[in-house]
Amino acid sequence: MHRVEYFKYKEGTLYCEDVNISSIAEEYGTPLYVYSYSALTKRFFQIKSAFREVSPLICYSVKANSSLSILKAMVENGAGLDIVSGGELYRAKLVNCFPGKIVYASVGKTAEEIKEAIQYGILMFNVESEPELEKINFAAGALKRKVGAALRINPDVKPNTHKYITTGEKENKFGIDIDSAHRIFLNRKKYNYLNIAGIHIHIGSQITSAAPFVKAIKKIKVLNERLRAKKIFLKYFNIGGGLGIIYNKENLQTVEEFAQRVLPLLKEIGLRVILEPGRFIAGNSGIMVTKVLYVKDTPHKRFIIVDSAMNDLLRPSLYGAYHKIIPVRIRAKDYRAKTKPADVVGPVCESGDFLGKGRKLNVKGGDCLAVLSAGAYGFSMSSNYNSRKRAAEVLVRGNKYYLIRKRENYHDLVRKEIIASV
Amino acid sequence: MHRVEYFKYKEGTLYCEDVNISSIAEEYGTPLYVYSYSALTKRFFQIKSAFREVSPLICYSVKANSSLSILKAMVENGAGLDIVSGGELYRAKLVNCFPGKIVYASVGKTAEEIKEAIQYGILMFNVESEPELEKINFAAGALKRKVGAALRINPDVKPNTHKYITTGEKENKFGIDIDSAHRIFLNRKKYNYLNIAGIHIHIGSQITSAAPFVKAIKKIKVLNERLRAKKIFLKYFNIGGGLGIIYNKENLQTVEEFAQRVLPLLKEIGLRVILEPGRFIAGNSGIMVTKVLYVKDTPHKRFIIVDSAMNDLLRPSLYGAYHKIIPVRIRAKDYRAKTKPADVVGPVCESGDFLGKGRKLNVKGGDCLAVLSAGAYGFSMSSNYNSRKRAAEVLVRGNKYYLIRKRENYHDLVRKEIIASV
Repeated sequence: MHRVEYFKYKEGTLYCEDVNISSIAEEYGTPLYVYSYSALTKRFFQIKSAFREVSPLICYSVKANSSLSILKAMVENGAGLDIVSGGELYRAKLVNCFPGKIVYASVGKTAEEIKEAIQYGILMFNVESEPELEKINFAAGALKRKVGAALRINPDVKPNTHKYITTGEKENKFGIDIDSAHRIFLNRKKYNYLNIAGIHIHIGSQITSAAPFVKAIKKIKVLNERLRAKKIFLKYFNIGGGLGIIYNKENLQTVEEFAQRVLPLLKEIGLRVILEPGRFIAGNSGIMVTKVLYVKDTPHKRFIIVDSAMNDLLRPSLYGAYHKIIPVRIRAKDYRAKTKPADVVGPVCESGDFLGKGRKLNVKGGDCLAVLSAGAYGFSMSSNYNSRKRAAEVLVRGNKYYLIRKRENYHDLVRKEIIASV
Repeated sequence: MHRVEYFKYKEGTLYCEDVNISSIAEEYGTPLYVYSYSALTKRFFQIKSAFREVSPLICYSVKANSSLSILKAMVENGAGLDIVSGGELYRAKLVNCFPGKIVYASVGKTAEEIKEAIQYGILMFNVESEPELEKINFAAGALKRKVGAALRINPDVKPNTHKYITTGEKENKFGIDIDSAHRIFLNRKKYNYLNIAGIHIHIGSQITSAAPFVKAIKKIKVLNERLRAKKIFLKYFNIGGGLGIIYNKENLQTVEEFAQRVLPLLKEIGLRVILEPGRFIAGNSGIMVTKVLYVKDTPHKRFIIVDSAMNDLLRPSLYGAYHKIIPVRIRAKDYRAKTKPADVVGPVCESGDFLGKGRKLNVKGGDCLAVLSAGAYGFSMSSNYNSRKRAAEVLVRGNKYYLIRKRENYHDLVRKEIIASV
């Protein structure tokens, strides 16, 4: 399930499904993101199947990879969307996502964003604080429309992942503690334009075992029972996202194993389940293709200098994330005496600009490399740092491929600027 | 010199020069970058004055803040530009920078970028490796134009700064070791379209003392003497950038003190000096203005949730950088019992999304905050992560202000996308 099964070598050349990566890199240039439609949808259906006993609403997490063509693929296959900003709502509208399948989470929604979401008729907001409940209630009142809400509860569990992507510990900015949530539910009538009928948790990202989920869900079960005892009956339980993928050698549960662990609990709780997978669907469904500019041997180290940089893929710099890097065409024989471990680095003027360290790669200038597992939090985090144009993106299905984002040009870099005569 | 002297309170409200920050935040919205023209130019002239004995060519480092209006301000006041990409060359052209004042550094220049720079007639490339020398020589040959080059030498000194922004240690991807450089200079005739007449060093960024510079320059002095003994006479010595600024309580040398330490050495070496200041000029000349969305008290901690996020200012997340945060309007009296230390965090769904931690700020929802020292590596590193629109930018001079970048709109987010019918 977690292998990059739609990216495979055929006669020494890497393919995405039935499309030769070399030829699309030639056609569209590098850096280039390439996604497999079959991988994206397969993972969606894996989750759907694993959780079929509870028929969950699966809301794809837009922030992982927000390309419209990918959102469209998700929506057409029955997914809802998990959004976190007005920009993501705009994207959801462009792909005609049914409003009743949209959940909106974020610790900092602006008044304008809240208004737009209510007007579109989203299923519910995941609400992070009491001031936010008041703000949404006020906005809904002004529009004279009732809107759904779930309380995002911070269950205070440690998910054992990178500190930047844990989101369910008490030190985090996210959510409401259980006791406060209990109090809010008891008084939920006071928000007369809100239908506070759900509980939301999201404990972090790239989590590799069910244990922290089980722990968090058990806490929610207790809360739900306390509420039922007070005649407060909820409707939705959104268990968030966070399912890990294999970047390197992570020893990972399958989604079926994960479902088996949490399904008994979810069935006992008995609420409509919502899931928010992002990385799980997109992560291993995409690669970033980059060209080797030089192989630079210093007395101390070898560097493979490529045309992608931290502005194209920030994860190695920001999280120290590991991405496997493989050649697009396998060279039969090393043209040097020995393939030494090399740092794969980009052109940006920072030592933090690297894609991988100590990698053994038999490549020459002009060769292409594929940075694997770059489908999630890859393009979506990219920037124009060093005035670099952002990459193009291609979506592959079978033997067909589609340019889904044009490469930026120089003019795009300055499009919003006005030269002032000061 | 290092204080944020152009950002001061008048009757409890923050001003940039003579412009009220509250009113421009009202007019253009938040997040908003605001720069002081007088601060930018003052710092440029401080460097010029401190180094007047050697009449250096000062090339402003575009990557620190590449806004066209700021580049124009630099160029009109006599600066050259230090560029690192084709995009930055494009910017240099748009502000009519004299080609003979442009130096081009980067470990990964593409063939196309090299060609464009030669055609524009830049002063020189800072060259990072022998394969790159060959590539530039080949490109110049194809255009039948000779072009200047400096060898970027990695002097292997430790500048005592963040590991991501050290660039002159032997473990780094940057530059050529001294012995290899010596050998290349002796054989420089073999590159018949290159005029290899300079030495470039750049040991890192945000360096707070002259000592590592002195150490590096002494090594270059020895190299230059070795070369002179072999009748190799160079013309330029580019000592790079890297001058630190005060973000918090750094005990910093003034630029005059720095100049006094390195000038005797530079005069002994006797080459034309080039400087590449970026952060020194832009860092404390700009702020980011953000609006408080909520103040959220949890049993464990207070959070001030603002409308700017890691996509707007990445430095706290990426480098753990400290930025001072102050209210735009000082509230006379705390409306709460006590101003508790709070984490100032953005709306992005990551715990790594913070602007500051443990800050005592007497603010309410709706108030504006100023994140200081955000003029360098602020907007230039910003992204659309979480489908957030990038900020607007304003340049202030005296009592006048100019919108130099319009805020992005939703359409800008998807401008390059094509929705594929897969």
